[in-house]
Amino acid sequence: MTDTVDIVPAPPEGSEQEARERLVTEQVLASFESSPDERLKEILQAVARHAHALVREVRLTEAEWETAIEFLRACGDITTDTRQEFILLSDVLGISMETICVNQPATGDVTEATVFGPFFVDDAPLVELGGDIAQGAAGEPCWVSGTVRDTDGKAIPGARIEVWEADDDGFYDVQYTDGRTAGRAHLFADDDGSYRFWGVTPTPYPIPHDGPVGKMLEATGRSPMRAAHLHFMVTAPGYRRLVTHIFVEGDPLLATDAVFGVKDSLVKTFTQHQPGEPTPDGRQIHGTWSETTFDIVLPPAER
Amino acid sequence: MTDTVDIVPAPPEGSEQEARERLVTEQVLASFESSPDERLKEILQAVARHAHALVREVRLTEAEWETAIEFLRACGDITTDTRQEFILLSDVLGISMETICVNQPATGDVTEATVFGPFFVDDAPLVELGGDIAQGAAGEPCWVSGTVRDTDGKAIPGARIEVWEADDDGFYDVQYTDGRTAGRAHLFADDDGSYRFWGVTPTPYPIPHDGPVGKMLEATGRSPMRAAHLHFMVTAPGYRRLVTHIFVEGDPLLATDAVFGVKDSLVKTFTQHQPGEPTPDGRQIHGTWSETTFDIVLPPAER
Ligand SMILES: [Fe+2]
Ligand SMILES: [Fe+2]
Repeated sequence: MTDTVDIVPAPPEGSEQEARERLVTEQVLASFESSPDERLKEILQAVARHAHALVREVRLTEAEWETAIEFLRACGDITTDTRQEFILLSDVLGISMETICVNQPATGDVTEATVFGPFFVDDAPLVELGGDIAQGAAGEPCWVSGTVRDTDGKAIPGARIEVWEADDDGFYDVQYTDGRTAGRAHLFADDDGSYRFWGVTPTPYPIPHDGPVGKMLEATGRSPMRAAHLHFMVTAPGYRRLVTHIFVEGDPLLATDAVFGVKDSLVKTFTQHQPGEPTPDGRQIHGTWSETTFDIVLPPAER
Repeated sequence: MTDTVDIVPAPPEGSEQEARERLVTEQVLASFESSPDERLKEILQAVARHAHALVREVRLTEAEWETAIEFLRACGDITTDTRQEFILLSDVLGISMETICVNQPATGDVTEATVFGPFFVDDAPLVELGGDIAQGAAGEPCWVSGTVRDTDGKAIPGARIEVWEADDDGFYDVQYTDGRTAGRAHLFADDDGSYRFWGVTPTPYPIPHDGPVGKMLEATGRSPMRAAHLHFMVTAPGYRRLVTHIFVEGDPLLATDAVFGVKDSLVKTFTQHQPGEPTPDGRQIHGTWSETTFDIVLPPAER
């Protein structure tokens, strides 16, 4: 973006120019009218309507349009099987979170969902209740416990709980090249719906910011940092799948999470304990440790 | 797109869910508030506002969001230095035309602008007034003449006129691999602002439709064909640059031009002549030929 932009002001209402600008939009909407795919028609007409309104509102210049095309091309250029810049773009514009929000409607006290993120792995090891999911991941030990219940408060025994998190350096195991598996596991809720495990106290990390999306964040004075978090995915037959995180109360990054994943209801107190304080399960810990509780409520499956 | 889509209906006004959906948008808008680049802030806030409204309106499903991400990735994958799928996407959604429209405001009887297209070449040969720009391009000979004037009707002597067009097979010279230069030239308006040249009668051709944008057109029952046209770019010191086409009256593709480039004011009568009918400049033509007139009006430069 240059500092001097020759913007053509919005035309007066009822002017020839206003009519011309509206006509372009009408022609595009009409072009989709005979689409055999009704849903695709609905979506593309809405895309065109909003994109045209955007161009008209901001009075997009031709140079800015070229910048936008170049930006998309750069996103394509950096995208590989392991780096998806278009998802990052959707994330930092909050489009991912808005889509999740629309599709996980508020139902009673059902636990709120948040972004899935790119670091889930399908075959994380099984850990017994009370076991350690860190598996060598560096970090302060953290005791996490809670329950999985339905909207009537009834326990969901055997609910499958997938958890994954970054280590103290802000890296997931899959970001190391040594093939390690650490900081991830799945476990099953007890007969009373309760669960518990050792992990590490979450620490913040940045989204990949060496590409066009990172440049965009920098140009607008935004941080690429995500608030510290611990991922959960909880599933049980007959219930809607929950993909969410918990966040750490007091984390200064809560208000500026790069992907807008933070929900007030997901911010949890992580109680700090001094070295030597007795742990819930009698484990001996030489340094500090923390402790948090996360009670999960799943809604019934849609059908 | 699948036929069965599990769409979550829009939330009732004033509901908790509606508040949650709006909150995501507010958080994204706020994240750009301290951008040091005011114009970038304005544009990105508008992008976010419209993208979020789109997601909420169509109740975009997570599967559809994934399809959209994959579509953008596919556009990136096919894009090279000579194939720009993001421009095609902008074109077939009419975003390019809307941007041009916004930036070339209606001023008196100034000639309307249309899309630039990818086939302009900077160093097209100079042709004398009345010369042949076809230079071997196959097609029916076409006599094109007109004037270049300002908004007061005053001639603009010496205005530079670039013209380029596809041949009878719908290909521009640069689409052949033999390095030919044909169907393009520049010429200069006469002392009285008049110009004239031989070209070929325009014929229709498709935009590149073997990529994701072509698939999108097909899925929505749209044609990739452009209405037949002849490109003009006209420049003169002190005047705004005009990039436009003329179209052929009666062309059945006028109403469905794939990139929405057609303007009523740019549709011209191409008079058909029988073999042997005398031509304006005495040239001997064995087959049929056509003739059209295009009077051009340039607005003053902005500053
Ligand atoms: Fe994460
Ligand atoms: Fe063309």
